[in-house]
Amino acid sequence: MSYGEPQRPLRFEEFKVGDRYTSPGYTFTEAAIIDFALQYDPQLFHLDAEAAKETLYGSLIASGFHTLCIAFRLVNQSGLPRFNVGGKGIDEVRWIKAVRPGDTLHVEVEVADVAPSRMADRGSVQLKYTAINQKGEAVLTALLNHMIRTQAGTAGV
Amino acid sequence: MSYGEPQRPLRFEEFKVGDRYTSPGYTFTEAAIIDFALQYDPQLFHLDAEAAKETLYGSLIASGFHTLCIAFRLVNQSGLPRFNVGGKGIDEVRWIKAVRPGDTLHVEVEVADVAPSRMADRGSVQLKYTAINQKGEAVLTALLNHMIRTQAGTAGV
Repeated sequence: MSYGEPQRPLRFEEFKVGDRYTSPGYTFTEAAIIDFALQYDPQLFHLDAEAAKETLYGSLIASGFHTLCIAFRLVNQSGLPRFNVGGKGIDEVRWIKAVRPGDTLHVEVEVADVAPSRMADRGSVQLKYTAINQKGEAVLTALLNHMIRTQAGTAGV
Repeated sequence: MSYGEPQRPLRFEEFKVGDRYTSPGYTFTEAAIIDFALQYDPQLFHLDAEAAKETLYGSLIASGFHTLCIAFRLVNQSGLPRFNVGGKGIDEVRWIKAVRPGDTLHVEVEVADVAPSRMADRGSVQLKYTAINQKGEAVLTALLNHMIRTQAGTAGV
């Protein structure tokens, strides 16, 4: 589903390898970058705008964990994984380009793999995330492994 | 380094495959679980203590992204990756067991791989994280890929 389209959550049977979805966007403010870093990733180049000027990045940059969490939130907000039974894990998170204050990201999602489960109420869906900035540059890629409810698993939901 | 030992940051040359370190601990409160979920992972079983009782988890559980971010913070807090030039990515994040309000986690870190870089001031270090709860159960494993400064890269630091 694209931003603005109806947001009916999808069941396992509706995910097809190669299908693509687009998330809404989010602008990383300096305040959000610093607040996140203070809690979860208190490294110099995420926390201290003055000291960051002297690093190889030349300015504050967002924690890669921040970018990953926002990417997940944006896809979640689109309704795409709403019939998630639970996450199994994440593979191949790659931080490709720095995210700086003022950058606006959205996420392009591609269905990378689908596999039935032994349990009739769910199946595995692997989603490839590519987070893209306002210049069209990929800043992060990751493979998210979900257990998604089947039609049987959502009967009555 | 273990909790309580002196926290001199290590340089690339000091990481040896198989070396182990232990992080300080952190107790997941209900408030922290809900606050994190509201921002980054607003799924029913992370947000709504009443509705969570009706899910297969039986109570609120922490977002897997929350567990991952806290694990990174705890290791960071130990000083271990302080000479990080930057993160390259994360592999094989696996959520093994639910984290519930009141659970206290720490992280056992093992050096999984070290590799010199073409650049003399840094090298690649892969750290395997195992987050462990107060019962001694592993709740999360992940491979964190770091670029760590060499002795040459920390001259004068």
